[in-house]
Amino acid sequence: MSAPKKVVLAYSGGLDTSIILKWLQTEYGCEVVTFTADLGQGEELEPARQKAELLGIKPDNIYIEDVREEFVRDFVFPMFRANALYEGEYLLGTSIARPLISKRLVEIAEATGADAVAHGATGKGNDQVRFELSAYALNPDIKVIAPWREWDLSSRTKLLDFAEKNQIPIAKNKRGEAPFSVDANLLHTSSEGRVLENPAEEAPDYVLQRTVPVEQAPNEPEYIEITFEKGDAVAINGEAMSPATLLTKLNELGGKHGIGVLDLVENRFVGMKSRGIYETPGGTILLAAHRGIEQITLDSGAGHLKDSLMPRYAELIYNGFWFSPEREMLQAAIDKSQEHVSGTVRLKLYKGATHTVGRWSEASLYSEAHVTFEDDAGAYDQKDAAGFIQLNALRLKLLAARNRRLK
Amino acid sequence: MSAPKKVVLAYSGGLDTSIILKWLQTEYGCEVVTFTADLGQGEELEPARQKAELLGIKPDNIYIEDVREEFVRDFVFPMFRANALYEGEYLLGTSIARPLISKRLVEIAEATGADAVAHGATGKGNDQVRFELSAYALNPDIKVIAPWREWDLSSRTKLLDFAEKNQIPIAKNKRGEAPFSVDANLLHTSSEGRVLENPAEEAPDYVLQRTVPVEQAPNEPEYIEITFEKGDAVAINGEAMSPATLLTKLNELGGKHGIGVLDLVENRFVGMKSRGIYETPGGTILLAAHRGIEQITLDSGAGHLKDSLMPRYAELIYNGFWFSPEREMLQAAIDKSQEHVSGTVRLKLYKGATHTVGRWSEASLYSEAHVTFEDDAGAYDQKDAAGFIQLNALRLKLLAARNRRLK
Amino acid sequence: MSAPKKVVLAYSGGLDTSIILKWLQTEYGCEVVTFTADLGQGEELEPARQKAELLGIKPDNIYIEDVREEFVRDFVFPMFRANALYEGEYLLGTSIARPLISKRLVEIAEATGADAVAHGATGKGNDQVRFELSAYALNPDIKVIAPWREWDLSSRTKLLDFAEKNQIPIAKNKRGEAPFSVDANLLHTSSEGRVLENPAEEAPDYVLQRTVPVEQAPNEPEYIEITFEKGDAVAINGEAMSPATLLTKLNELGGKHGIGVLDLVENRFVGMKSRGIYETPGGTILLAAHRGIEQITLDSGAGHLKDSLMPRYAELIYNGFWFSPEREMLQAAIDKSQEHVSGTVRLKLYKGATHTVGRWSEASLYSEAHVTFEDDAGAYDQKDAAGFIQLNALRLKLLAARNRRLK
Amino acid sequence: MSAPKKVVLAYSGGLDTSIILKWLQTEYGCEVVTFTADLGQGEELEPARQKAELLGIKPDNIYIEDVREEFVRDFVFPMFRANALYEGEYLLGTSIARPLISKRLVEIAEATGADAVAHGATGKGNDQVRFELSAYALNPDIKVIAPWREWDLSSRTKLLDFAEKNQIPIAKNKRGEAPFSVDANLLHTSSEGRVLENPAEEAPDYVLQRTVPVEQAPNEPEYIEITFEKGDAVAINGEAMSPATLLTKLNELGGKHGIGVLDLVENRFVGMKSRGIYETPGGTILLAAHRGIEQITLDSGAGHLKDSLMPRYAELIYNGFWFSPEREMLQAAIDKSQEHVSGTVRLKLYKGATHTVGRWSEASLYSEAHVTFEDDAGAYDQKDAAGFIQLNALRLKLLAARNRRLK
Repeated sequence: MSAPKKVVLAYSGGLDTSIILKWLQTEYGCEVVTFTADLGQGEELEPARQKAELLGIKPDNIYIEDVREEFVRDFVFPMFRANALYEGEYLLGTSIARPLISKRLVEIAEATGADAVAHGATGKGNDQVRFELSAYALNPDIKVIAPWREWDLSSRTKLLDFAEKNQIPIAKNKRGEAPFSVDANLLHTSSEGRVLENPAEEAPDYVLQRTVPVEQAPNEPEYIEITFEKGDAVAINGEAMSPATLLTKLNELGGKHGIGVLDLVENRFVGMKSRGIYETPGGTILLAAHRGIEQITLDSGAGHLKDSLMPRYAELIYNGFWFSPEREMLQAAIDKSQEHVSGTVRLKLYKGATHTVGRWSEASLYSEAHVTFEDDAGAYDQKDAAGFIQLNALRLKLLAARNRRLK
Repeated sequence: MSAPKKVVLAYSGGLDTSIILKWLQTEYGCEVVTFTADLGQGEELEPARQKAELLGIKPDNIYIEDVREEFVRDFVFPMFRANALYEGEYLLGTSIARPLISKRLVEIAEATGADAVAHGATGKGNDQVRFELSAYALNPDIKVIAPWREWDLSSRTKLLDFAEKNQIPIAKNKRGEAPFSVDANLLHTSSEGRVLENPAEEAPDYVLQRTVPVEQAPNEPEYIEITFEKGDAVAINGEAMSPATLLTKLNELGGKHGIGVLDLVENRFVGMKSRGIYETPGGTILLAAHRGIEQITLDSGAGHLKDSLMPRYAELIYNGFWFSPEREMLQAAIDKSQEHVSGTVRLKLYKGATHTVGRWSEASLYSEAHVTFEDDAGAYDQKDAAGFIQLNALRLKLLAARNRRLK
Repeated sequence: MSAPKKVVLAYSGGLDTSIILKWLQTEYGCEVVTFTADLGQGEELEPARQKAELLGIKPDNIYIEDVREEFVRDFVFPMFRANALYEGEYLLGTSIARPLISKRLVEIAEATGADAVAHGATGKGNDQVRFELSAYALNPDIKVIAPWREWDLSSRTKLLDFAEKNQIPIAKNKRGEAPFSVDANLLHTSSEGRVLENPAEEAPDYVLQRTVPVEQAPNEPEYIEITFEKGDAVAINGEAMSPATLLTKLNELGGKHGIGVLDLVENRFVGMKSRGIYETPGGTILLAAHRGIEQITLDSGAGHLKDSLMPRYAELIYNGFWFSPEREMLQAAIDKSQEHVSGTVRLKLYKGATHTVGRWSEASLYSEAHVTFEDDAGAYDQKDAAGFIQLNALRLKLLAARNRRLK
Repeated sequence: MSAPKKVVLAYSGGLDTSIILKWLQTEYGCEVVTFTADLGQGEELEPARQKAELLGIKPDNIYIEDVREEFVRDFVFPMFRANALYEGEYLLGTSIARPLISKRLVEIAEATGADAVAHGATGKGNDQVRFELSAYALNPDIKVIAPWREWDLSSRTKLLDFAEKNQIPIAKNKRGEAPFSVDANLLHTSSEGRVLENPAEEAPDYVLQRTVPVEQAPNEPEYIEITFEKGDAVAINGEAMSPATLLTKLNELGGKHGIGVLDLVENRFVGMKSRGIYETPGGTILLAAHRGIEQITLDSGAGHLKDSLMPRYAELIYNGFWFSPEREMLQAAIDKSQEHVSGTVRLKLYKGATHTVGRWSEASLYSEAHVTFEDDAGAYDQKDAAGFIQLNALRLKLLAARNRRLK
């Protein structure tokens, strides 16, 4: 790979990406464009502008954007249509944000004539894979720089030395090492590393960033109603909301009730296991609600097919293949199923758990006329079941007869 | 089908199966053998013996058996090795009990020279399918009698009239209609019908049979440790227990903390949707614990394959195909994966939720040496990730280049 | 089911459906509308009109339609996009025609105010299921009459008696029983029953309806080129053709070279095995050609996902679920993959076999620059493979180390 | 990776692996052990011994083994139980041989105290992955040396120079470059590269190594019968044979009739497409025969599950994951299905095609009593089909009613 001339950097304004910014300038002598996105991580973006300027970035080269609506509408919601869970439990909060960042990095590169993009993910994790596969899938000629895989700043001390040598301001509380590493966006907060590295030990409560410990959640349950249209949540308690507003509101509700905290040991795409504490308060409620509305609006054929495709779909997102033909194929199948996934679900939030307690819809397939224990007025002829069972049994009878014959 | 001469009836001792018993005698003039099983439903069995005798069954024709250990060891535990969930949520508590009952019915038929078996499931539900497919798979020549599909006792009044005419004792509290229908065994209690038929309305607390309402659960969390060997739970808090004893203990713990209550609208195999309230206190804890121990002892290849096979496996059990070649094939695959699923999981039980907080094992695949944020002493070469990403990206780059070329 | 008042009958003009026509009139006293479709079965349709009139059908109630283009465009081609094979070998020639017939039956019922449709499939086969599931999926209130399951005309003699009594003309060669049963349309001819019922015995050459025995095929191979656009064949040897014209031409070519004869024992949806001889000359060539063009235009992600979905897709069509949400979901995924499946495939036809010998496309993903044994000018860095392998191996190494540790 | 001290090299005796042998000695100064296996590639092995000795290998360090029976029994046959086809067409002839070679390399390394193994596969292909994943899965501490990814002998000229400098004898016909590259074993021969690199151009007949061009195959068909026991072929025309003997015989038959030649563009695991000409004469016959016996001995539940698992199974083998938990899980499922896959299949071999014409078995599930067009004496009640269809249709009717209601 030839040296990059102009690089778009995913820049948070924090110490690490500031060091990367400077390192790109000094190592490659290249022009740097910064991209700072508001994905709902809960940090102000303007300080990032000031820091970028301080590090010599031209105002025209500083991109700061609020992408929360795009994030929820085009990434989070499509994923929730699939009820995606990685390894049975993880709501993919980090995974789903990476393709959007890469998409904007590549677009800004094309707009500014940059030939490379750079990110601050390490060589051990999944995020490098997600950033880079997304970037290459969108622009096959782009260069991707991953400083953590290249430089020799392999210890905290070396990083701080580099920062000092290059006059990068270091906040007082960043001198020492953080007790664990955090990633956040509107869908979730993940914490991992250091104090969390022993999977046998319970994570301390102070790890929680946006969720109260369950014991401190209110002693009274709270009921809410979420309304869906074509598979996407559109209102809470009857109030219509934009995607990001809605997820923000669900996060408040979930956080207050201690909902959506997951302690997981998962399999990284790069081959090792890692332990994370994930907080997905709103997403956890949303998944329960979406399953609730599907219960009455999807038939078994669609529902079971979705369930069988889901693990593969979740794996693709986890592994970084959002922008791949196979994810798009699965999305087409999933989206096809959501045409009538409209209606309202009632949930009870209490002490860390979400309980689905009711659901109704004009598009409901639930037929009390058929299922009732009372007289069904001929809606269903129980004698049909005899034939149904006989023909389902036929092959089993032939097998049993064969196996007896051979004994 | 020619008329049966001798029938083995799945007999609970309750009013409905007593009516069936009498109806078989009067309708077919056949000899009846009763089979009453203790599956952990929490009822005494001896009254069933007395009632059977009262209805003229010869002592030799009365089979009363405690099958709880067989139930958990040979049916529940194999199913939990698969982390089976039907439609994403249902732990299959009713489904998994039916094949065992059919197995014993067929075995008793063969032992007593009976040519038929009979059950008390209606023509609208799944249980008829499960009973009958299992029976036919085990004995292709057996006759199966399903009185609910045959007789004209289509209302409560007609049933009671038949009972009175035939001198079947009717308990006072059975005169009126129950507000909902209940099925129970050691794994779960299901409630459905009547007051529960409107899926929009929250189920009243009095539906709960074995679980306290979450609000009434203790205000202090309780920690427990479950130990697994080769995929099956073998001890709680270090105390070794037999399968049924262990599940009974988990039920106590879960019931006390309000764990494992599910309000679900599901798709029946016979084509309609139904709403049920399921209580699976011990099973819910067991699933969380099993996933917890798999997190550190299964690699991603085995785990992801299991996840992708699970929906099909659960559907087979739900639909009544326990005794089918394809369920056995999937079981072989699943069991193959469990050889090293041994170790201990620590869980926190609180207010309706199970939180996995720690797990450890001699067979752990978690490698702190690889994952650590600290110096890994060369366990992992971050530069390998560059090649890994490049080759995973190659096809995406070729696609992107092709698509750009064609624009 | 209340008695039908007006029935649309799938009417071939042959003896069996003429008997059904008369039976509907006499049994139900209902008005009959006949629908006779040209699906490419190779019979003239006008005689069906005359016979219908002879049996008293009003001219307005006689529908005769050439649906060959719709058949190939909307049913055959979508299915071939999936490379569908049932049980690894069967090209689904009968299965795919049934939904179209049902669709027109239901549409004509709605246009003529009929409340029922009727078909001539027996109670042992798959076709009854396909006809009826399609009809119910398109009109939930339609009645479906399947005379073969209802009447007592259970022997050839009884059928002929009924025909004579009702003055239905019987062609001389229909007096005796046919040596086997045939179904045909533009995609295939199936033969089954009677002389073919022993699966151990080779089918005699005279069974073949549209394909020469391989030994009689030309001694010289013939080369052809098929061009695809977005997954569908559009030209042969550079000559653009409509879907039905193209398939007709491929049938001629395949038939001449003895291509596409399959002797299969398959599993019917109703639970029994049956043996059929299938001739799909054009379809067999088309499948090879479609796979050929996908080889260079689909990437592995899309291709492997398609391959994994295919068995389920084929099973759905075989079982009669063309008009089901899950078939439509799979179709959406498959169609999504075909956007760039355009280009030309060169095939050699010879003595019963189709050999793909070349393929080219503007949308090709094949990169000689990458794959070449010669100097690749840096298109591919072989050192990347080391990292790729290391990370793919990591979990296997961790497993091996664990397993060694436990020994 | 520290330098290896003693290396076991997969050594063919040819020029390339002789160069590798010498390069290992000179580059690493390490002791070399050679392993030469007879996998049925059709070359004598003793010359390899002489060449190894000539290059200074101690007699004790020269391992020459006939592994043909192990190859067919433990690798080829298990794979054929799955009817494995990669990308719908490729019988995995190269893929399946690599794990066996790696297994012996690792075993010899452990026996001789070697700390490394080496192979002659390039950095562009799949074989490097297969060799190395297998080696690491069997010994997590082994080093693997892949000279083609390390050295700078990047052209034919440099290789020959190195050979000359190191006094490696060069056969006259090896001076020039071969027109294409060949790999062979008892299952297949693959040819790729150079003259075959343009996928639009038909491969010339001279590429074929073990199969006659179809036009030159006999003008008379030949009938054979293959007998299976538990899924594996055990006899041809009634003559019992060992696995390797049987496959050898099938290769002769297939080669004579021009059977099993495949021209394929496939997706390599490393991300690029490549074109190969594969000859698998015996394997092609074996697949047809195995499918033939499964047709009558497997029920639809087992068969359809197998078909749905097969693409993943084939992909795992292609990608080099033979020694992985997920391949072993799938194998357990597949093997479970083969218990009664016993019986005989009759095939007609003619001009490049294999035609299954008959099959019979004591374990047959085919029931003429059920399927017959004649009177079935009550084996099957056609009225059962009505109930079967009604309940299969119920959800479709509810869907149709819902969709109409919403219009």
